[in-house]
Amino acid sequence: MSYNLLKGKRGIIFGALNEQSIAWKVAERAVEEGATITLSNTPMAIRMGEINTLGEKLHCEVIPADATSVEDLETVFRRSMEVLGSPIDFILHSIGMSPNVRKKRTYDDLDYDMLGKTLDISAVSFHKMMQTAKKLNAVAEYGSILALSYVAAQRTFFGYNDMADAKALLESVARSFGYIYGREKNVRVNTISQSPTPTTAGSGVKGMDKLMDFANRMSPLGNADADSCADYCIMMFSDLTRKVTMQNLYHDGGFSSVGMSLRAMATYEKGLEEYMDTDGHIIYG
Amino acid sequence: MSYNLLKGKRGIIFGALNEQSIAWKVAERAVEEGATITLSNTPMAIRMGEINTLGEKLHCEVIPADATSVEDLETVFRRSMEVLGSPIDFILHSIGMSPNVRKKRTYDDLDYDMLGKTLDISAVSFHKMMQTAKKLNAVAEYGSILALSYVAAQRTFFGYNDMADAKALLESVARSFGYIYGREKNVRVNTISQSPTPTTAGSGVKGMDKLMDFANRMSPLGNADADSCADYCIMMFSDLTRKVTMQNLYHDGGFSSVGMSLRAMATYEKGLEEYMDTDGHIIYG
Amino acid sequence: MSYNLLKGKRGIIFGALNEQSIAWKVAERAVEEGATITLSNTPMAIRMGEINTLGEKLHCEVIPADATSVEDLETVFRRSMEVLGSPIDFILHSIGMSPNVRKKRTYDDLDYDMLGKTLDISAVSFHKMMQTAKKLNAVAEYGSILALSYVAAQRTFFGYNDMADAKALLESVARSFGYIYGREKNVRVNTISQSPTPTTAGSGVKGMDKLMDFANRMSPLGNADADSCADYCIMMFSDLTRKVTMQNLYHDGGFSSVGMSLRAMATYEKGLEEYMDTDGHIIYG
Amino acid sequence: MSYNLLKGKRGIIFGALNEQSIAWKVAERAVEEGATITLSNTPMAIRMGEINTLGEKLHCEVIPADATSVEDLETVFRRSMEVLGSPIDFILHSIGMSPNVRKKRTYDDLDYDMLGKTLDISAVSFHKMMQTAKKLNAVAEYGSILALSYVAAQRTFFGYNDMADAKALLESVARSFGYIYGREKNVRVNTISQSPTPTTAGSGVKGMDKLMDFANRMSPLGNADADSCADYCIMMFSDLTRKVTMQNLYHDGGFSSVGMSLRAMATYEKGLEEYMDTDGHIIYG
Repeated sequence: MSYNLLKGKRGIIFGALNEQSIAWKVAERAVEEGATITLSNTPMAIRMGEINTLGEKLHCEVIPADATSVEDLETVFRRSMEVLGSPIDFILHSIGMSPNVRKKRTYDDLDYDMLGKTLDISAVSFHKMMQTAKKLNAVAEYGSILALSYVAAQRTFFGYNDMADAKALLESVARSFGYIYGREKNVRVNTISQSPTPTTAGSGVKGMDKLMDFANRMSPLGNADADSCADYCIMMFSDLTRKVTMQNLYHDGGFSSVGMSLRAMATYEKGLEEYMDTDGHIIYG
Repeated sequence: MSYNLLKGKRGIIFGALNEQSIAWKVAERAVEEGATITLSNTPMAIRMGEINTLGEKLHCEVIPADATSVEDLETVFRRSMEVLGSPIDFILHSIGMSPNVRKKRTYDDLDYDMLGKTLDISAVSFHKMMQTAKKLNAVAEYGSILALSYVAAQRTFFGYNDMADAKALLESVARSFGYIYGREKNVRVNTISQSPTPTTAGSGVKGMDKLMDFANRMSPLGNADADSCADYCIMMFSDLTRKVTMQNLYHDGGFSSVGMSLRAMATYEKGLEEYMDTDGHIIYG
Repeated sequence: MSYNLLKGKRGIIFGALNEQSIAWKVAERAVEEGATITLSNTPMAIRMGEINTLGEKLHCEVIPADATSVEDLETVFRRSMEVLGSPIDFILHSIGMSPNVRKKRTYDDLDYDMLGKTLDISAVSFHKMMQTAKKLNAVAEYGSILALSYVAAQRTFFGYNDMADAKALLESVARSFGYIYGREKNVRVNTISQSPTPTTAGSGVKGMDKLMDFANRMSPLGNADADSCADYCIMMFSDLTRKVTMQNLYHDGGFSSVGMSLRAMATYEKGLEEYMDTDGHIIYG
Repeated sequence: MSYNLLKGKRGIIFGALNEQSIAWKVAERAVEEGATITLSNTPMAIRMGEINTLGEKLHCEVIPADATSVEDLETVFRRSMEVLGSPIDFILHSIGMSPNVRKKRTYDDLDYDMLGKTLDISAVSFHKMMQTAKKLNAVAEYGSILALSYVAAQRTFFGYNDMADAKALLESVARSFGYIYGREKNVRVNTISQSPTPTTAGSGVKGMDKLMDFANRMSPLGNADADSCADYCIMMFSDLTRKVTMQNLYHDGGFSSVGMSLRAMATYEKGLEEYMDTDGHIIYG
């Protein structure tokens, strides 16, 4: 169903890999809502994933770029303005990767070159994107820029490792640049803190399925999926949210505001049973 | 302009007084977006304000009710379901009043009966509204409930007085009830923390115009007005935000995430000048 | 062990009931650190509990008072200043009670008279205490006032019910009054958000032992007990924290900053096992 | 005055430059409270500053180290354990520097090599410090580790530039490593978010004196100075705060919880006067 919320708007979507990707769903919904877009991802991701299929389906150009390269980002913005016309109305940053996670380095045994890469790819790239766009005057007045984040920026989740730090940095960049882009161009910059989502990126995190189950039972509305996240992004790109900026918006079925739910506790209690004596008292280990 | 975001939806708007009211704008926008609604306010407010004019304009019924009375709230829900059909899809709570503020009692000289009233009118009424609605099974699965709040719930603003405490309580009620209403009915409950807005309600707060100027210069996008707040409420009532619950959403041009802006500091510095010696050093008092 | 951190200071401790009480431990530690104090609780609590024993042990007067009565609070301050000399240097508010919890009313079936009592006893009493003290000029310059809170003020814990709202209100009162008391008297006002603690008050909350186990496994340092909470209170009463005010300070072994720990997940996973198929995939219900 | 709070404890203080430094004051107070310590700073800072004088005064060794070098950090820990005995009980990280700020690059014109340095020096160094310490098993059970932060991690202050992002990253590192160090060694890790302080480091930030005036008038207790910050650090190093971890603790006279104070507004209003017409209405620009 379409509301024409993005009619006549131009956008760039970074980070779609395959059908599971949130960025993929956002691209589809943006076009459905009347936008014209370009897609971007790394040359490697373009080869490994199915983004070209998406490009064909949506009739939009796929522009290869390493989002840590200012030069590549310039190419994306210039080319997008050629293809779509200028200026650009919205941008999605859905990029994150930790070599430390991939190489199974624990957080107390980080490789610091890898940490540098985690931060550069997952957070500094967002700054580069905005600084490049601003220098090229590529974004329209009242434009909207989003990046995807995770609640690990506020609370530690074992196994999420240095991606937690990257997300904290990402959210700070959104605030810091949002201040400047807002006062000078009325451009808003926000992050959406999304439920754990079964994407290719998420699958690298240890025990992801169990964490997702926990999050699902903690959240009164259950985990938010990629489709509903795409809807929320559309809203944030539309003209109905023009005064929202520098915010981290939880899109998580309520998870972030729950300390303990009845449903999650029911499962936890089953796990506790073997720690209990016959009177039902917990035997502390 | 309409997107038909609320086509076929039924809503109840509490708290419209006159054209300045945020609730007034929300009512207009909701109807524009395809909803059918009822309006409610106290009998006194109906007499003093212009809500009947709004009712006529939007062809919707105005149901008098004291939102601190469970009985009156039952009437609003029952009558709304008669008029609109059932169930109700969305509710706006835009109600707040402090007798202590009105009577110019300072925060260290509160009258406690008045404090009880402040809390009951401005915060507990939101609980009563939801408990009544839930008992009557009045709200649709995936319905959306909103209340308007202010950043004073997190940080102290001199002169805002016991309304700050009421807003903190209101936001807590939204979380607490949101948990229950979410897990049982997929109903979402959120608060929107709005920029200071020149409404009749806001005008009771001391030095409001100067505070608004400060907020405006602090916020990279400037203060959000009642019209854009209405847009944001529409978005939160629509089906595009179904997984957002138990959140306090800042709609404030960025104010909540700014510690000090260049623009606000420029004004502040002018005020500082008379505290400076001829070398530009500040003389601390 | 004593550091003489409160040597020569005078304090009032509200809310000690029996040896499990945090207030009990704070009283003992305060005296150990060189303070002279008075104790206060309701006449009923004095009869039911063992506070008189504590008074004898610490050689300090027990002053009966209903903390919701301004008149009674005046008596506590006047009498304390007679007994200890004036002015008072520190105050502990460790008071909370929900008739709705006691009567097992669920949060979507609250009795509103009882809710009024919950708020009055657990939160408004803190305002009354400070307003009364300020009017009597009872607190010393650079005095320190504390109330005990719980993380349910920020996140919903099923079963904690309307006490969550009371704690949110309590923390707001601390900020609001802290602003005034700070600027006028350099008095600091803070709340300590304590781990779930096996006190008589806590025992009313449903499934408390299991929640405590969860909190314990989530917290890298384990739950903080009443003794260590007393230590933290002493520090906040001492002259080493003179510039800390309007804060909610988590004393919880890290719980508030953890999204999921390895230890808690290990228990959760055991509970999940019966929801898994033979390949270890979770069967979602 | 001394309470012997750190009697018999061993500590390492990173980042003292001269008498204005917070780290300098912490070193003095730590020794006063009975600790033995070592000091560390970069070779350049040791030459430019007066840390050797401090070392002589406190009879403690000054160990040169670049805190971004794991090798240098190993040297600091090994040498400290030789000099003081092992294990170490507390560590202060008071290190921050932004080449972008020094070179007056604005936040929308950052040099990315410099940003990398800002993050490495000001935030990643804290991770390196802890990872190194943990690998060397250098920190005692129930040890305490602190880093100094600033509220710019949460809210944007114009001119604070990429240091805001560094502080957000620093606070995240504290949480992430605090989780691990807590569960394995009962070591606590926290950050103190300090008032703007007239140190050599702070003096690089644009308009610092005016910002400090604003912060001072916003804070009910006024800005916290370096001496009181040292007191707070002592408290966090002592055994009285053993269950506090993964927290960011505001030591700021209340600033972080104030939206607008009467005192700050009085100055702001003077600045507004020239924007007012003769009736006292604000002329919006």
